[in-house]
Amino acid sequence: MERREFLKTVTTAAVSATAASALAAPAVLAGEKTYRWKMVTTWPPNLPVLQDGAKLFARRVEELSGGRLRIKVFAAGELVPALGVFDAVSAGTVQCGSGAAYYWAGKVPAAQWFATVPFGLNAQGLNAWFYGGDGLKLWEEVYAPFNVVPRPQGNTGVQMGGWFRKEINSLADFKGLKMRIPGLGGKVIAKAGGTVVLLPGGEIFTSLERGVLDATEWVGPMHDLRMGFYKAAPYYYYPGWHEPGTCLEVIFNRKDYEGLPRELQQIIDLVAMEINLWSLCQFEAGNGAALQELITRHHVKLRRFPDKVLADLHKLAREVVEEEAAKDPMSTKVNEAYKKFKAQVGIWGSVSEKAYYDLIADTYALNQ
Amino acid sequence: MERREFLKTVTTAAVSATAASALAAPAVLAGEKTYRWKMVTTWPPNLPVLQDGAKLFARRVEELSGGRLRIKVFAAGELVPALGVFDAVSAGTVQCGSGAAYYWAGKVPAAQWFATVPFGLNAQGLNAWFYGGDGLKLWEEVYAPFNVVPRPQGNTGVQMGGWFRKEINSLADFKGLKMRIPGLGGKVIAKAGGTVVLLPGGEIFTSLERGVLDATEWVGPMHDLRMGFYKAAPYYYYPGWHEPGTCLEVIFNRKDYEGLPRELQQIIDLVAMEINLWSLCQFEAGNGAALQELITRHHVKLRRFPDKVLADLHKLAREVVEEEAAKDPMSTKVNEAYKKFKAQVGIWGSVSEKAYYDLIADTYALNQ
Repeated sequence: MERREFLKTVTTAAVSATAASALAAPAVLAGEKTYRWKMVTTWPPNLPVLQDGAKLFARRVEELSGGRLRIKVFAAGELVPALGVFDAVSAGTVQCGSGAAYYWAGKVPAAQWFATVPFGLNAQGLNAWFYGGDGLKLWEEVYAPFNVVPRPQGNTGVQMGGWFRKEINSLADFKGLKMRIPGLGGKVIAKAGGTVVLLPGGEIFTSLERGVLDATEWVGPMHDLRMGFYKAAPYYYYPGWHEPGTCLEVIFNRKDYEGLPRELQQIIDLVAMEINLWSLCQFEAGNGAALQELITRHHVKLRRFPDKVLADLHKLAREVVEEEAAKDPMSTKVNEAYKKFKAQVGIWGSVSEKAYYDLIADTYALNQ
Repeated sequence: MERREFLKTVTTAAVSATAASALAAPAVLAGEKTYRWKMVTTWPPNLPVLQDGAKLFARRVEELSGGRLRIKVFAAGELVPALGVFDAVSAGTVQCGSGAAYYWAGKVPAAQWFATVPFGLNAQGLNAWFYGGDGLKLWEEVYAPFNVVPRPQGNTGVQMGGWFRKEINSLADFKGLKMRIPGLGGKVIAKAGGTVVLLPGGEIFTSLERGVLDATEWVGPMHDLRMGFYKAAPYYYYPGWHEPGTCLEVIFNRKDYEGLPRELQQIIDLVAMEINLWSLCQFEAGNGAALQELITRHHVKLRRFPDKVLADLHKLAREVVEEEAAKDPMSTKVNEAYKKFKAQVGIWGSVSEKAYYDLIADTYALNQ
C-alpha cells in the first residue's frame, strides 16, 4: 500500500466514516493549561502500522483533547536511539515513548511477558489478560520502579516464522544456522544450536542476500513484502511460534502522566486502547492481501514448520521461559500469573477459536 | 462472578489500574452546552457484559465529556420492548440504543451481516472488516435510510453450539428437533428439518426442562452457566458455527449524533471502540473459568459436533446466506463485500491464528 493511501485508510478507519469530513482544527479555550510533549519511538520513520500508529496516537490525542495536549513524534534515532526510548522516558528527558516491552529485557527482565512469549498468548488472549485479567496491573507494577507507566498500544497478531535460504526438516537444521531473531525466540534458536544475530531492520536484507545470514524473521506478510526478503530467501515459514501476538506499547514518564488533569489521562488511556485495536485490524486486513501477492507474484515457497520441529522448539521454549523466570522474583511472579491466565483462556480457546478455525479451514484458497 | 465483583473488574480494567483511585465527579464549565440522552437496550437489566457494557459506555462517555453528555440507560422493556430499540432510535424517540444488528433483520435484511453470519468471520475478522476494511462504511450506508448511525460496541467471540437433551450424531438428528435458535442459524436448522422456536431469555430454561424445547443455544459458558441450562440438557456442543463472533452495536439517531459538537462525536465513537474491545476481553477471560466449572462441578457432557454434521450444516448455511443475499440489492452488495474480505483474511488466518491454535493444542487441559 502506498503511504498516501495508507494514511487515508487510517483516517477513515479510526475517525469513523461519517464524520471524517467534519474534522476541524481544535480550539483551546482561554485560560486552559496546554501541554507540549515529545514522544520517541523504536521505529523507522515510515514503518506502516507501527510508526504510523504512534503518529496516529499523537494526532488523536490532540483532537480529543481539543489541542490541550500536543505530542510531537520522533522516529528512532531522531532524538534518541531506538533502544534508548525506555531510559529517556524513565529519566523524563521526554514525556512518552512507543516500542515493545521485550526491547528492555536487559534492564527489566520481567518486561518480556508483556510483549510476547514463544508459544504464549495470541493477541486476543493478551488483550484479555490486560483488560479482563491482571495483566495491565502487573505491567504497571513491573515498570513502577523506573517511573514509567505502560499502556498496550498495538498488536501484530501471530507473526510469520521467518525467511530461510534452506528448508527446515528437523531441529538439527538449526545447528549453525545464522538467524536474525531477537528476544526469547532467539534464546530458543540458540539452545537449538543456532547462531543468533541481532541486526537493525535496515541491514537485514543485504546480510541475507550475501549469506551473512541464513535466515531472518521480521513481522508478517505486509511488512516482510516491503523488505523484499523473498528476493534473498525463498522459503517462508509459518507459524511464528516465537511471536504469537506481539504487543506494542506506549509508555509515559510517571511524573508527567500524573501531572496531567484526570480527563487528559483518560484521553491518552483511551486513545492507546483505540490504536491497540486499530493496529491489530490493520495487520489482520493487510496481511492476507500481502501473502497472496508474495505467493502468486513472487512465487514464495510457503512452508509450515514440520510437527516434530515445532514440538522440539516448544520443549526448548518451555525451558527458556522457566530459566528466564527464575532469574528474578518479579519475572517469577509475572510468569506464574501469565501461565495461570493462559491455561484459563486456553481451555476456552480449544472449543471456541480453535474449533472455529478448524471449521472454516476448507474455505481457504491458498494458491500454492 | 457476583455483580459487585463484576463491576469492580469493570472499573479496574477500563479506567486503568493506576488512576482508578483518582476518579472525581466531572465538572461542566460555565456556558458549555450539556446534553441529556436516553439509551434503550435489548438486554435484561443485569445481563453481564452486554447490559453492563451499555451502562459502562454511558459512564465512560459522561467521564470523558466532563459531564457534558449524560446518557441514562434503560434495559429491555423499561421504556420500549427489546425489539423496539431500532425503531425508537430511528424515530428519534430516544437518542441511542444498544443491541445486535440481526434483531432488525425483518426491517433491514442487510443488517444481519454486521452481527454475525454462520461459518462467517470471527471477532478478529469482523473488527478488521470494520476498522481496517469497508465494513463500518457499508454498515453506515445500510442504516442511513433509517436515520440511524451504527458503531460496533462489543463482540461475544465464538459462541457455543448449544445445549441438547440428546446427542447429535448426524444431520437427521435435527429432524423434528425443537430448538431455540434465532437469526440465520435458525434458518439453517429449519432447512435441516428442525422446528425453530423463538423465546425470550426468561422462558428458555423452563421450556427446556419441560421438553417444550429439545435444544437451545444462548451465548457462551459464562452466560450459559448463569442460566442453569446444564440442569435441563446434559450435552453441551461446540463450536458455535451459527455465531462465530457476534458483534454488538450502539446506534444513534442521526440528527442527535450530528447535532453534537465534533469533540463529543469523537468521544462516543472512541468509547464505543473501547467497550467493543473490553467486551470481547470479558468473554475471553470469563468463559474459560465458567467452562471449567460446568465440566468439573456440573459434569456437563462437552461434545464437538461430528465433522460430517458440521460439513452438512456448512452446506446448508451457504444456501441460506445466498438466498438471503438475493432478497434485496443492499443485501447482495453487503454479502459480496463480506465474502471478499473473508477470503482475504481467511488466507492469512490459515497460516496465523489457525496454525497458532493447532500449535498450542497440546497445552489444553480439558478435564472431560
